[in-house]
Amino acid sequence: MSLLIRRDIWVLKPAFEIGQPLAGYGVGVVLRSDNSDVVVGQHLHGRGFIFEQYFVLLSLPLGMYFIDKHGHPGLPLTTYLGALGVPGKTAWAGWKDFASSKKGETVFVSSGASAVGTMVIQLAKLDGLKIIASAGSEEKVEFLRKLGVDVAFNYKTVDTRGVLEREGPIDIYWDSVAGETFNAAIDNAAAGARFLECGQMTTLNSVGSHALTINNPMPIFGKSVSIHFISSFVIIPKHVEEFYRVVPAALSAGTLLRSPEDVRHGLECVGEMIRAVQSGETKGKAMVVVGEEAQD
Amino acid sequence: MSLLIRRDIWVLKPAFEIGQPLAGYGVGVVLRSDNSDVVVGQHLHGRGFIFEQYFVLLSLPLGMYFIDKHGHPGLPLTTYLGALGVPGKTAWAGWKDFASSKKGETVFVSSGASAVGTMVIQLAKLDGLKIIASAGSEEKVEFLRKLGVDVAFNYKTVDTRGVLEREGPIDIYWDSVAGETFNAAIDNAAAGARFLECGQMTTLNSVGSHALTINNPMPIFGKSVSIHFISSFVIIPKHVEEFYRVVPAALSAGTLLRSPEDVRHGLECVGEMIRAVQSGETKGKAMVVVGEEAQD
Repeated sequence: MSLLIRRDIWVLKPAFEIGQPLAGYGVGVVLRSDNSDVVVGQHLHGRGFIFEQYFVLLSLPLGMYFIDKHGHPGLPLTTYLGALGVPGKTAWAGWKDFASSKKGETVFVSSGASAVGTMVIQLAKLDGLKIIASAGSEEKVEFLRKLGVDVAFNYKTVDTRGVLEREGPIDIYWDSVAGETFNAAIDNAAAGARFLECGQMTTLNSVGSHALTINNPMPIFGKSVSIHFISSFVIIPKHVEEFYRVVPAALSAGTLLRSPEDVRHGLECVGEMIRAVQSGETKGKAMVVVGEEAQD
Repeated sequence: MSLLIRRDIWVLKPAFEIGQPLAGYGVGVVLRSDNSDVVVGQHLHGRGFIFEQYFVLLSLPLGMYFIDKHGHPGLPLTTYLGALGVPGKTAWAGWKDFASSKKGETVFVSSGASAVGTMVIQLAKLDGLKIIASAGSEEKVEFLRKLGVDVAFNYKTVDTRGVLEREGPIDIYWDSVAGETFNAAIDNAAAGARFLECGQMTTLNSVGSHALTINNPMPIFGKSVSIHFISSFVIIPKHVEEFYRVVPAALSAGTLLRSPEDVRHGLECVGEMIRAVQSGETKGKAMVVVGEEAQD
């Protein structure tokens, strides 16, 4: 689900237009500049990248930023699409705003090996929580263990509801998938649980309805569950200064880890990559390289 | 919607049984006692009252308490079903836990003249909020103005969505009705809004499904709305001490006001009263007197 924001009007991202290039989050480098403030070789990241090898900007779009490569050495540019991009910032800001975590509580993180999930897990770890996390391959589950997850499992081979029944009740659920996993989490939530809704991957392509349906609202009321719906645009601004003060240095020093990445090459794999993301087949944060930077 | 709680198991209130008396919240007086700790003439209030003139208790049920009549003079016993009962405590605890109000924000309170709504409005007033509140009669709207509501309206004659469009966006919604009012509130919510879900009067009797359906989840995500589902049982304990320290004295002194009351007499009106509550026809907090206390 992608949302555009225009002042106080909230609109869905318009459907892709046939014949027009797709746009999304990206990283790029300045090849030519007629603006004395912008130097050839500077890197940019953020929103408003068009999926083509070259494009011309008349001004810096909202949400596109210059990268300080020298300030934080050792970070590959892909970091700016994951841990230092919207996923990392969303995880950081969402956790700070809504988790209200207390040491010893239990958190369940779905899509644990995603760029968002990786950051959430490490923040939960710092807060002293018991962490249950799911991912879609054995490789990713191995990565979750490396992050310090207490109960890591492959949701494709292990029943999520069963895990939550054994290892719950859960005080916090970081939800990137919605659907049946949401309902299993509700049924295994503790009184006063906080649900952080960050995506609805399993219901994103449901045909015919945008309704969010909760099968059994009784336990939600009975347990006084709080459900926080997350918009990156709304929650990031308040936390972005602290984020940039803390996170790039921690990633550079290796005290925070980046999520796995799945980097493919060539414009022609964009469509297949979108499909693979939505079916959980990617090996990590999905990125497509549409143009290589010339190496000196 | 009534919920019973049994340790960590959450169950719905069982359906009424034909031939068995109904039970609910009540106020009573001890007429006879074989227990030296319980004195004839002492008053009780809370959960577990059976809708009959006399009943026998072998022990004090969970959620039933003795009333300190002398500590807070001038408070009619009906206060213990409203402002000093579960409604008042729910409003107090819910507001403290979930409102996160900031001076100058706007709150919308549905069922504003209810025992819950009356307390919520006064807490919002103390926090310096702009208050929009609805009720179902001109009399109740007049009462809302007396409470200091900035925008009071009769939802039976004035379109709720129109009011929220003119007077919003709203930062907090205290919801006792759900249904279309919930959706109108979502569409007129500010970024970062908090919704406090305290009842679903308009959908309570929906046949066939207990599903909570949100017609348009997009603005809920887009605005990062937090939805807090309230269970009195879960949230009251943490706040009950402060509540009893502050509220009875404030009511006794008149610095907090009680909601209007609709008191009817005789067991035979219980059924009609339940119907009237659910169709919004009562003139205030609904109570049925099933036995009068003998006056000395």
